[in-house]
Amino acid sequence: MSGDLGPRIVISASQKFVARFPDTDLVLVGDQTQILPSFSQLPDLSSRITVLHADDVVRMDDDPLVALRQKKSSSMWMALDALRNGRVDACVSAGNTGALLAMAKFLVKSFPGTERPAICKSMPVEKGNTYLLDLGGNINCSPSQLHQFALMGSVLANMEQPSAARVALLNIGTEAQKGTDVLQQAQSLLSADNRLNYVGFVEANSIFSGEADVIVCDGFNGNIALKASEGVARFITKKIQATTYKNIKNKILAFFAQPLLRQLRDELDPSLYNGATFLGLQKTVIKSHGSADEKAFLHALIVAREQVIQGIPARIQQVLSTIDF
Amino acid sequence: MSGDLGPRIVISASQKFVARFPDTDLVLVGDQTQILPSFSQLPDLSSRITVLHADDVVRMDDDPLVALRQKKSSSMWMALDALRNGRVDACVSAGNTGALLAMAKFLVKSFPGTERPAICKSMPVEKGNTYLLDLGGNINCSPSQLHQFALMGSVLANMEQPSAARVALLNIGTEAQKGTDVLQQAQSLLSADNRLNYVGFVEANSIFSGEADVIVCDGFNGNIALKASEGVARFITKKIQATTYKNIKNKILAFFAQPLLRQLRDELDPSLYNGATFLGLQKTVIKSHGSADEKAFLHALIVAREQVIQGIPARIQQVLSTIDF
Repeated sequence: MSGDLGPRIVISASQKFVARFPDTDLVLVGDQTQILPSFSQLPDLSSRITVLHADDVVRMDDDPLVALRQKKSSSMWMALDALRNGRVDACVSAGNTGALLAMAKFLVKSFPGTERPAICKSMPVEKGNTYLLDLGGNINCSPSQLHQFALMGSVLANMEQPSAARVALLNIGTEAQKGTDVLQQAQSLLSADNRLNYVGFVEANSIFSGEADVIVCDGFNGNIALKASEGVARFITKKIQATTYKNIKNKILAFFAQPLLRQLRDELDPSLYNGATFLGLQKTVIKSHGSADEKAFLHALIVAREQVIQGIPARIQQVLSTIDF
Repeated sequence: MSGDLGPRIVISASQKFVARFPDTDLVLVGDQTQILPSFSQLPDLSSRITVLHADDVVRMDDDPLVALRQKKSSSMWMALDALRNGRVDACVSAGNTGALLAMAKFLVKSFPGTERPAICKSMPVEKGNTYLLDLGGNINCSPSQLHQFALMGSVLANMEQPSAARVALLNIGTEAQKGTDVLQQAQSLLSADNRLNYVGFVEANSIFSGEADVIVCDGFNGNIALKASEGVARFITKKIQATTYKNIKNKILAFFAQPLLRQLRDELDPSLYNGATFLGLQKTVIKSHGSADEKAFLHALIVAREQVIQGIPARIQQVLSTIDF
């Protein structure tokens, strides 16, 4: 209910999802007067999609702690409560990130030792993809939190063999003596842990070069890196559009180059990377971008399904239980 | 001498520069055995370009403080010393940023109240450009330092009327209560200063949308934002290349679209934005990107000339002298 584009794109993405994955059913939590009409046209799918009515909604500008106290009949709360009580195996939301974090922590609980879940996202890079965390869950992080992030990210990056995932710490230089005291201490913890394949410090430009499979940072810096990247990508896309429409000559050239421009747009499509994971929770909670379209929200649903199948929370619990924090 | 590409590109950029600006002469500081041979072929320009020989060079991996103590016969030291003693009006270097900062602070001196110079760069945005600072000079910043950055950035962004420049603080959300204690206190200082046109917090994606003329942050976050942006831009450029060479069909399409792709490349050309300013120093020092090519280094020289003509250091001194830190 609380994404920027409202329930419409969630409903159409859900219809595509159940058609594609016969093994996974969906529960849509929200205002049934807005949701149900869309299903009357698709009776064959409606057995796979159940609607759980919620009267209230968490707004994008709601204060997370106020929402936590007062919005117990919101769609967000009820969806997370359905996860808590085992009715569903994963929860996906495009709503208010802070409120989702706070409610998830309260209802679904995190594993002992994790203060707040870390937000982790797969980023497209030159070869394959890189997991970046934290992206905003924890503004200030202790060295031991960064150590946790490294372990959790390794599980996600290489489900078969987490100790093979190359892990780096985000810094403003690659030399071992660079950066803050927290980064220096985190470096000691990461290099000493033989379950980690720690490869050193990387600068933010290396996020996209594929030098590491997991890049660890505090939530403030991760958010800055992610948002700056999104900003540049949007800026370049607009430049491409402006150039192709600049004058008649360019329009004609763009017409002939259309298949090329379309391929490029598809390859850079941010919706292919939608769906951030809240790592450290006892169950799977996925945050979709607030402005996700149908294709992007569908991808977030696929990420959730994959993590349930792979049993990510149990694997995270295992890796966290072996260290003292 | 110490840029990634060595003195060659500096020499060719210098030749272009003096041919274009009859009012500005250059002094090249470095190993004369490498520099002089290039000039024998161009006798008409050599009267405008003088070579000051230096035996030593600061390496990219030299520790800044070690360089400061031991490299007094390096090209970097001698160039900054020529600035100190008034032989030149500005210094441009593509070398080790930390060493350049340390030597500049020692030789050229900063204005009272500025602890270390802030690194400030003009970024291309949707309409015009935005000045981002600090980009790595100061890892941890106090609220009063961020206040200084706002004032100095306003002078650079709007030389005619600094109080008109829209100033924002970089944060992980736009709501007034978001972010760290330092950002909260900086917000109070900026909103209370009526010489500033403070417009609030912005997120990193807004760097490129042109919502503010000056965006203020600490050097760690600024470095992350800048490097992440550079990384994405390079990633997209490589994707464009890979797509155009993917198969015969794409190669043919790209051949026809060539003028379009060339225009686009020119518009996104990072060399058009090369040349970061060290703000807070008593004289003009410009840092070129280490990997700058001829065109990019030429742009850094143009930035230096412009700031000397506009008397930026004196204007900065004026704005800083009116507040107590």
